[in-house]
Amino acid sequence: MQQAVPPSSGSTPALLPPALCVLGLGLIGGSLVRAAGPRLPVFGWSPSEPTRSAAKADGHDVLDTLETALTRADDRDALIVLASPVTTFRGLLRTIDAVAPAARLTDVASVKAAVQEEVTELAPRTRYIGSHPMAGTAASGWAAGSPELFAGAAWVTCLTDDASVDDWADVAGLALAVGSRVVPAEPHAHDLAVARISHLPHLMALALAQVGEHGGSLALSLAASSFADATRVAGTRPELIRAMCETNRDALIDAMDDVLGILGVARGSLASTGSLFKIAEAGYLARGLFEQRANGLQLVTVQGADLIDQLLAVGAAGGHVSALARGAAGLTAEAWYPDED
Amino acid sequence: MQQAVPPSSGSTPALLPPALCVLGLGLIGGSLVRAAGPRLPVFGWSPSEPTRSAAKADGHDVLDTLETALTRADDRDALIVLASPVTTFRGLLRTIDAVAPAARLTDVASVKAAVQEEVTELAPRTRYIGSHPMAGTAASGWAAGSPELFAGAAWVTCLTDDASVDDWADVAGLALAVGSRVVPAEPHAHDLAVARISHLPHLMALALAQVGEHGGSLALSLAASSFADATRVAGTRPELIRAMCETNRDALIDAMDDVLGILGVARGSLASTGSLFKIAEAGYLARGLFEQRANGLQLVTVQGADLIDQLLAVGAAGGHVSALARGAAGLTAEAWYPDED
Repeated sequence: MQQAVPPSSGSTPALLPPALCVLGLGLIGGSLVRAAGPRLPVFGWSPSEPTRSAAKADGHDVLDTLETALTRADDRDALIVLASPVTTFRGLLRTIDAVAPAARLTDVASVKAAVQEEVTELAPRTRYIGSHPMAGTAASGWAAGSPELFAGAAWVTCLTDDASVDDWADVAGLALAVGSRVVPAEPHAHDLAVARISHLPHLMALALAQVGEHGGSLALSLAASSFADATRVAGTRPELIRAMCETNRDALIDAMDDVLGILGVARGSLASTGSLFKIAEAGYLARGLFEQRANGLQLVTVQGADLIDQLLAVGAAGGHVSALARGAAGLTAEAWYPDED
Repeated sequence: MQQAVPPSSGSTPALLPPALCVLGLGLIGGSLVRAAGPRLPVFGWSPSEPTRSAAKADGHDVLDTLETALTRADDRDALIVLASPVTTFRGLLRTIDAVAPAARLTDVASVKAAVQEEVTELAPRTRYIGSHPMAGTAASGWAAGSPELFAGAAWVTCLTDDASVDDWADVAGLALAVGSRVVPAEPHAHDLAVARISHLPHLMALALAQVGEHGGSLALSLAASSFADATRVAGTRPELIRAMCETNRDALIDAMDDVLGILGVARGSLASTGSLFKIAEAGYLARGLFEQRANGLQLVTVQGADLIDQLLAVGAAGGHVSALARGAAGLTAEAWYPDED
């Protein structure tokens, strides 16, 4: 299915949309405006006047109303990026369907199946490809943004059997242009994965912060790096945590049941036999697997009629796309794929 | 109970034992040898020949047998520090009782009530004060040690109603000399606190690492800082995690039940109403309290007949001792204590 090739020599011309229209200028949207600005025409909008003023003051092209931003996006065939909280999407999608109904469209929300359904319902003619850059900090807002935020980060780009690879290439090209690793994934597979490695860690941090507080002043004064690191993301604004976790309910409940089961078994073993052997050994091995996850990748070329299946196989195996080109044979991707042996 | 004083002007002569005998030269013991060496005579021992050779090669005074180390400790009235895994303490205490039965003695284990009981049983004549420097990394062994490991860390020094404040001052003076904040605490109060802010975070990291692994290659490839930070301490050697967690069983079970309850309620709320309001708000407030814990401290002087009670009150309130002096009025401590208002 893949053939090994040497690393690409020289730079490949980036595949990018004609322009970029970023709706929402918080941490992710604001960072995207900064990161993409040198690569293609970028303009943006925020519902917040102070945010628009701050972004303008930093030299960025910001429009004052959603309608003017979308009209310009329609004129220039720009890729529209929904970069505001997922709870605002329904309203935005209705306006997009009215002003720029066939637009190139993506979003950066941390859930993908639910957004895909909303787009199908409310803006069905858009050329939509869901995406999710796995980058962030506990900080938020325009001022917290950085053009380096996406460098080296995984950026999920969604594919389904009936997707257009040309629409996908717009979004994947943007992610590559700002320095991310492009991970193709089905929307539902994405949601299951991030429930485990992003949403659940947020809930565990929130729970642990309370357990520490219940220990009183002595406990908090003794807390060192293990507690500080494990509760860091509990400092994220509660409404942002709720927006991402509550919209991924089913997958998150599965992940919560998994961790409740592991901790419950450990609690029972500690109480009955005094041993934590099982959780200690299995957890240590799992952490080792995580630390070694990026070892043993080889560069392969992905092209041909079953391109979507091949790209999804790359993502499912823990690989990522590192370059894209469009030629006589259609779209070609270079990807890092785990060694077979 | 306390009177405010201005910060001490000039340096106070440190209260230190005549010499230091460190048994066990891993991360903590090895760091202590390096950090204390410039302040007082220090010698050590390790059961591992390669470790002894490595420490000698780095210029430290290391004896080849436990008996010669303890004989020298007895001759020089050295403070003996048990810095090996807590599972080795019973054997060490029997030998101490035979060779240096009235020695000054402390340990650096992460549980305190159980060690206190072992000392009372096996080396009852020693001048024992339990202690626990809240410093560490996921690394271990002599090579991982650093003279800076204790700088700025909380160092618990145990007190009970019948303790000798002079014995306590040896250990507290050592902790101050290597740059730590000295936190006086009763052994049981220490164990309850560290179950919540150290032992439980290790178990949660071990559980989360497995939940991530269960998500497969896609999940691990998408894991970013929230997962990496939350599982970091799962990379600690399993036998070290077991040694500290299993010996603090009762307190750890309480902490586990607390976190299982919080996560269980959140799971129920998410499944029934779809809301994570409660855990999101309470966790955010708790993290904020942790981040602000060191604000609003004032410097006070602690001295007099009820010194032990006053020192324990400082620790219980989230304060710490920053300087010690011995004068005509006996032992005097300067301490940072939370503002009353």
